[in-house]
Amino acid sequence: MASELRHDQLRQRWITISDKRGKRPSDFERMSSQRFGGSPEATNRGPCAFCPGFELVNGHETFAIRDGDQADAPDWRVRVIVNKYPAVSMDYGDLQPTGEGAVFDECRLPGFGSHEVVIETPSHDLNIPELPASHVAEVLKAYQARINWFQNDPRLKFCQVFKNRGNRAGASMTHSHSQLIALPVITHNKITELDSAQEYYNDHKRCMMCDVVEHDTQSVRSRLIDENEFFITIAPFAPSFPYETWLVPKFHSSNFESIGEDEIQAMAKLLKLTLRKMDLAFGYPPYNYTLQTALLGKEHFNSSHYHWYLDIAPHLATPGGFEMGSGCYINCMPPEKGAEFLRNVEIEPQ
Amino acid sequence: MASELRHDQLRQRWITISDKRGKRPSDFERMSSQRFGGSPEATNRGPCAFCPGFELVNGHETFAIRDGDQADAPDWRVRVIVNKYPAVSMDYGDLQPTGEGAVFDECRLPGFGSHEVVIETPSHDLNIPELPASHVAEVLKAYQARINWFQNDPRLKFCQVFKNRGNRAGASMTHSHSQLIALPVITHNKITELDSAQEYYNDHKRCMMCDVVEHDTQSVRSRLIDENEFFITIAPFAPSFPYETWLVPKFHSSNFESIGEDEIQAMAKLLKLTLRKMDLAFGYPPYNYTLQTALLGKEHFNSSHYHWYLDIAPHLATPGGFEMGSGCYINCMPPEKGAEFLRNVEIEPQ
Repeated sequence: MASELRHDQLRQRWITISDKRGKRPSDFERMSSQRFGGSPEATNRGPCAFCPGFELVNGHETFAIRDGDQADAPDWRVRVIVNKYPAVSMDYGDLQPTGEGAVFDECRLPGFGSHEVVIETPSHDLNIPELPASHVAEVLKAYQARINWFQNDPRLKFCQVFKNRGNRAGASMTHSHSQLIALPVITHNKITELDSAQEYYNDHKRCMMCDVVEHDTQSVRSRLIDENEFFITIAPFAPSFPYETWLVPKFHSSNFESIGEDEIQAMAKLLKLTLRKMDLAFGYPPYNYTLQTALLGKEHFNSSHYHWYLDIAPHLATPGGFEMGSGCYINCMPPEKGAEFLRNVEIEPQ
Repeated sequence: MASELRHDQLRQRWITISDKRGKRPSDFERMSSQRFGGSPEATNRGPCAFCPGFELVNGHETFAIRDGDQADAPDWRVRVIVNKYPAVSMDYGDLQPTGEGAVFDECRLPGFGSHEVVIETPSHDLNIPELPASHVAEVLKAYQARINWFQNDPRLKFCQVFKNRGNRAGASMTHSHSQLIALPVITHNKITELDSAQEYYNDHKRCMMCDVVEHDTQSVRSRLIDENEFFITIAPFAPSFPYETWLVPKFHSSNFESIGEDEIQAMAKLLKLTLRKMDLAFGYPPYNYTLQTALLGKEHFNSSHYHWYLDIAPHLATPGGFEMGSGCYINCMPPEKGAEFLRNVEIEPQ
């Protein structure tokens, strides 16, 4: 078995089973002992496989930003490649669901999709807060370019952009990077968000997130962290994690991939500021960020009820069985208090 | 603010915000540096606050199993207490939802509920696999007793029993223990499971999990790990985690808390065997288990469509932004291969 998608019909959740990423049981054993006793961060010494000079080792780029015009040359500033250990792959033809007996009918699909890595900078030691905002904007443009490319394949329904920073947040490489996974199915969380947004719109004739932006910038400002011309960062009203922060456009927009140059530059500045604050406040914490944007496909452009955002979550607590079992999170940092703290983190001028 | 429940209306998820468990930002900073660099397991040296002799420090027990008849005496074998850092508490009267403006209307409840710790053994150094099966049965009976007690309070709707073992699985104490959290709301995962089970029942006029049991024991046995008279352990068809294992009653039963003596003894044996196999195979890994049983309230007794089970998940991989953002999991261990491995782990006679 190479890779497949399976549907957990009790939990309504798609699972990607990827034997290519697979390990023998003995690999898990080693990993586990290491992790239970303490989880040494991967070494930070370069050069690594994401550094310039390793282009041919990594395979052809799917997208890059550089001054020159030769693909796969080492003069890139941002480079996108297929993940070397992909969860899904475009090498599948037939997307007919199959199953196993009557009980798991239509619960199986080939592991079709795209799993890509965005190498955010040629510099082995720099992270988003240390890059110029104009460079961060190029990382965001790489996300846009790839999402827009996926829009052309009608088999792909959903794309998740995400970043794992630090071993505890799921990263295996320290060289600054993020990832995209595009799938032929719509995942559970996205279905829930789209349904909630649609229901709110039906009830109120307004976009839920537009109402949140208005509420948090005008009525109650206690969860507002920072803002600029086009964006705000807020602690969400009901955050799952301590200091969870949403970066939200002030203007209504359902598709991140369609925003223009001025908005991308403003977003890059606020993203850089937010991650810089977290690095200063929490001592370079592991974190994830995930982009929540509309589904793939032209019919999902300019939705009046969905409003995209970027969800940034430092790993400062360890979810356990309660969260896993119930889907309810215990958060020991009230968002109003967390926002006040992050609002007041002092940043030296750069 | 002491503790409150908030509803994330976009993700349809309840969050517990507990300032009692709260930390100052500087606490997070220390925690983060420690964790990012490596996560030292809490010291395993006894005695700790869960050891006999500390009964008065921990406060009155809510339940215990002992030979004597004096509450809070140190001769217990299993002891249940209120969590010292509770996510919720019974000290709230009014359960009327409140909100904040129009956008967060009815999204707030006081942090009402019960958060208890089941100290599974007086021995500081023993875990479930090292306890006699008859003692493990007493731990399960403590779960039953507390769930049945919560049934008497009509304000409580949902109870999650769970165990965190090891720092990476969310445990802060090494002394073997599990926890219960009872809430006045029904959480997202439970709503999804109940809806799926109901829908399957409507379509097929049979219980989904009864069909899974029949399929996995008779048609396709490749995910079957172990079985005894009343229970099986299986790798689920679409597991979120490598080596995730479900312990499922072979007989139809919606309420764990109502099963009888013979069934509890059989469950204890299979639970002990499963955790022993994981300890041997993966070198004492961190893990969670969570009990998925019916909602609280007599009207949920003997449901024909819901079937309880215990979900055991060793922490051998680190979910990242993809899982957080999409709700879809990447699992690099096909369940058939994982089940074959666990089925063949050799256990010395005990």
